[in-house]
Amino acid sequence: MPEYKAPLRDMRFLIDDVFAFPAHYASLGADDASPDMVAAILEEGAKFCEQVLAPLNRSGDEEGCHFDNGVVTTPKGFKEAFAQYAEGGWMGLAADPLHGGQGLPESLGLIVAEMVASANQSWAMYPGLTHGAMSAIHAHGSEEQKQTYLTRLTEGRWTGTMCLTEPHCGTDLGIIKTRAVPQADGSHAISGTKIFISAGEHDMSENIVHLVLAKLPDAPAGTRGISLFIVPKFLPQGDGVGARNAVSCGSIEHKMGIKASATCVINFDAATGYLIGEANKGLACMFTMMNHARLGTGMQGLCLGEASYQGALRYARERLQMRALTGPKAPDKAADPIIVHPDVRRMLLTMKAFNEGNRALAYFTAQLIDVAHRAETAEARQEAEDLLALLTPICKAFMTETGLEATNHGMQVFGGHGYIREWGMEQLVRDCRIAPIYEGTNGIQALDLLGRKVLGSQGKLLRGFTRVLHKFCEAQQEHPQLAPQVAQLAALNRQWGELTQSIGMAAMKNPDEVGAASVDYLMYSGYVTLAYFWLRMAVVAQEKLAQGDDDGFHQAKLVTCAFYFQRILPRTEAHRLAMSAGSASTMQLVEEHFAF
Amino acid sequence: MPEYKAPLRDMRFLIDDVFAFPAHYASLGADDASPDMVAAILEEGAKFCEQVLAPLNRSGDEEGCHFDNGVVTTPKGFKEAFAQYAEGGWMGLAADPLHGGQGLPESLGLIVAEMVASANQSWAMYPGLTHGAMSAIHAHGSEEQKQTYLTRLTEGRWTGTMCLTEPHCGTDLGIIKTRAVPQADGSHAISGTKIFISAGEHDMSENIVHLVLAKLPDAPAGTRGISLFIVPKFLPQGDGVGARNAVSCGSIEHKMGIKASATCVINFDAATGYLIGEANKGLACMFTMMNHARLGTGMQGLCLGEASYQGALRYARERLQMRALTGPKAPDKAADPIIVHPDVRRMLLTMKAFNEGNRALAYFTAQLIDVAHRAETAEARQEAEDLLALLTPICKAFMTETGLEATNHGMQVFGGHGYIREWGMEQLVRDCRIAPIYEGTNGIQALDLLGRKVLGSQGKLLRGFTRVLHKFCEAQQEHPQLAPQVAQLAALNRQWGELTQSIGMAAMKNPDEVGAASVDYLMYSGYVTLAYFWLRMAVVAQEKLAQGDDDGFHQAKLVTCAFYFQRILPRTEAHRLAMSAGSASTMQLVEEHFAF
Repeated sequence: MPEYKAPLRDMRFLIDDVFAFPAHYASLGADDASPDMVAAILEEGAKFCEQVLAPLNRSGDEEGCHFDNGVVTTPKGFKEAFAQYAEGGWMGLAADPLHGGQGLPESLGLIVAEMVASANQSWAMYPGLTHGAMSAIHAHGSEEQKQTYLTRLTEGRWTGTMCLTEPHCGTDLGIIKTRAVPQADGSHAISGTKIFISAGEHDMSENIVHLVLAKLPDAPAGTRGISLFIVPKFLPQGDGVGARNAVSCGSIEHKMGIKASATCVINFDAATGYLIGEANKGLACMFTMMNHARLGTGMQGLCLGEASYQGALRYARERLQMRALTGPKAPDKAADPIIVHPDVRRMLLTMKAFNEGNRALAYFTAQLIDVAHRAETAEARQEAEDLLALLTPICKAFMTETGLEATNHGMQVFGGHGYIREWGMEQLVRDCRIAPIYEGTNGIQALDLLGRKVLGSQGKLLRGFTRVLHKFCEAQQEHPQLAPQVAQLAALNRQWGELTQSIGMAAMKNPDEVGAASVDYLMYSGYVTLAYFWLRMAVVAQEKLAQGDDDGFHQAKLVTCAFYFQRILPRTEAHRLAMSAGSASTMQLVEEHFAF
Repeated sequence: MPEYKAPLRDMRFLIDDVFAFPAHYASLGADDASPDMVAAILEEGAKFCEQVLAPLNRSGDEEGCHFDNGVVTTPKGFKEAFAQYAEGGWMGLAADPLHGGQGLPESLGLIVAEMVASANQSWAMYPGLTHGAMSAIHAHGSEEQKQTYLTRLTEGRWTGTMCLTEPHCGTDLGIIKTRAVPQADGSHAISGTKIFISAGEHDMSENIVHLVLAKLPDAPAGTRGISLFIVPKFLPQGDGVGARNAVSCGSIEHKMGIKASATCVINFDAATGYLIGEANKGLACMFTMMNHARLGTGMQGLCLGEASYQGALRYARERLQMRALTGPKAPDKAADPIIVHPDVRRMLLTMKAFNEGNRALAYFTAQLIDVAHRAETAEARQEAEDLLALLTPICKAFMTETGLEATNHGMQVFGGHGYIREWGMEQLVRDCRIAPIYEGTNGIQALDLLGRKVLGSQGKLLRGFTRVLHKFCEAQQEHPQLAPQVAQLAALNRQWGELTQSIGMAAMKNPDEVGAASVDYLMYSGYVTLAYFWLRMAVVAQEKLAQGDDDGFHQAKLVTCAFYFQRILPRTEAHRLAMSAGSASTMQLVEEHFAF
């Protein structure tokens, strides 16, 4: 079973050296997030994740959740771990002090969340959904709603959900059937069935606050007629809970993975709900949660990739099998450790390159969230929002695709043992496999990126980011060691714009060109984005080396960067050619002729 | 749950039109395999697989195998289905008539095996391992051994296994610890523990015939000191079985998938075994089984990809979600079926291109097996053997990688429902995930291809195949519709040789160059190989169209071929660049610096 150790050294490298978090926090006036405070939070978070959450990961998968007549019981130890998490104040780390939070920057919350999900993805779903609900209520709730719900969610006494999907629709929320009928007291009676509701029912908290999309009687058709409602499992009363609301869990799903996360069918039978935000503007409110959730989902790729890497590396150093092609490396043993074999190293380095590159992308994005929420000027906030809008679908889809690839490599390193449950490596693949699906499938993310964000802004959002890359390349073009890679990135950065233009032109004649190219476009964008972050890390690593500051860590960064540029980045060529082929061969086949 | 329908139309297209099986059988004197006979076998095989095996696939996964004190019980219905299979004579379809078989060509056996594994991969393991054992005994057993074991295996009264792996070694068979001590009566006492033994213990047959690798007392070290033994669960007696041998099942594994296939720990406690073949030549004997098994494993990628495609296509035509980018296609419904969306089509066409391309590769290879076994001249047999040697690792690794990709696409088409067990789509991913691992991991296959087969023959084996492609391209270079793709294939075929040469040169200085390039080389080889088969199919489809012979089937072939060339074949570029980068960035990092 892979034993999780928080990769604090790599995290600190990004925090201190690459992205200068101390200066970033200081510039936003986030004085509480002092270097000492950050260090303490990382240490304590690591301890909790390594010692409390990680040991529950395999057992949670084996036991799964139990459903009995509407009651859901989480696996042994889950409830206690959640109590400890709440007691430690982790739920409110980045929450508004007005409602009981510690008011630390969101980025710090995301970094802690990385450790949580690396240690135990199923368990992470419960606080994860709660964080999403908190952000929606914080952004759109009335002060009374915040006092009633947000404070308890922040305490970890209550937990939250997001209820979007129905049996007949997931992506297409415009056709939901759940109805909200206004009541005399200003509340609404909510009726309908929601499916795939993570943390929809469980035994961890006193109350569960559902955020539910539903339609008002006079609502316009489609997505412009959706409203958002708070529907608590128990109606609030005084400091605690009162009557049980007409909300019930009909069943839980039997899934491929994240088995310890309760995925519920939730029935609303004229349940009491409270409108949050404006009527018919529910989808926009929900997107506050969903953008948060999309970054969180992207990070699952990183988290499970990291967990898998740790397991695979340990095994590769211990397992003895065959001799190195260049002659025995451990002549005193029956065979060499498999890490001597080039292809095992290829798999490990691919995982390492994705994990560390994705971590850099995630922390960069986390800083943007801080800026978008806290910067003084509207201009700075907007600039961060624009970059966030562009990077969110890349984080969600690219990080989950590459994270899934990483977990598959990790399992492969184990050979036959990787397929056996007790080793824990196949669980990471199963747990990761949902990430490219939920919170908007990666196909939807790709449409969001190319159609809505890039072409929808006439290229403006893309240019905001390619400009960042361009400036970096200009500044580093004469770098004594890295100039060839800088030139490679600069060329790809130009090509990115050209490809965008040519798809944009084709799309004006035929909208299917967007859909046909979108996933290749997204993956291309992801590889170029990661190349940028790998070079940023390499530049810093080179500086540190020049200062004589090395125990191998910075050297390893440079080797991994070289590996990324030589052996992974060439995938851009396959994606470039595939997306440039146009939509004809994709669209031509008539439906009836797909099979005979 | 995906409902399996044997793709008889596509199978017949390959059998009758592309590979001219009737002429092939006639040329080998396989007169029993008349077109009528082939047709009847396909029809009957399809019926059995669709009606008997497919319905047991989901239930088998849910129930799994039971282990109780050494006794293994297979899921409900498995035993009865096996009895039906044996009774139908399927086990002996391609077996030697001297030992009760029907003597039909191996290729026909493989085509039937495709339907079996598409319908139920776990169930297919039981006859699959038996076929492997049969081929080893047929090739290396004494006449007495054949009469005793082969006849019963052919009848389906007994089943077989292959016992290679031990807890400390799988790939590295040179270090096995199982020992064989000669006994006075000419038998051997076999002692040791074997793991990962598929069909090692179960309730389907009267006896289980283990083929076991072990070392004689005076055996040389390494792979040159391994011998092969027949170790039956019950000692044969008269027409049936006598005393129980000292062979026991210690436990069964809990696995990611193929849960209805019993994967056993088998303990041999001075069990009675009989040497098969020559002493210390056991590995060569086992390779007879393993080559068979490697093709079979490769076909699992095709089989599970096909099953997944059928499920995904049905869902894509039924599930209504969003409107087409070009305007509503089903205006009378709440939304359009998702097959209108370009990215859903991209996933389906990718699956279709892999499945049909892999099927062509598999049937071509199956013909080579016929030729290798039955051709009149030694020269023809050797030529087929050489092509087989080259194509076996490609079949095993490329077909399982692309099959796994296909099952993942199929699951993705289902969105969130793909992650739920009852739909059956995630099972196909789990069942397929073992295929890139067992029978020699795909990394080992890649080394076998590049190191042993291609460079080990100084390029001779590769040239045997590139010559086939070259001749085809020359013949078709002025094809009125397909000339551009023919030129593309010809260029890749040349490049394949050039890449091989340049890696070969580099490898002379540094053997790690082979290991570092091997997986990219294998995947590159696979994509080029499939391009050849797609063009062969396209040429035939074009001919049929010109004859006015179309209901859409041949048109669909041409569209899928175009899709393959435009949107999948460009992956060769990524692999070419990655393998051309050399081994430095892969080998440079010192072991201690992979993590901090």
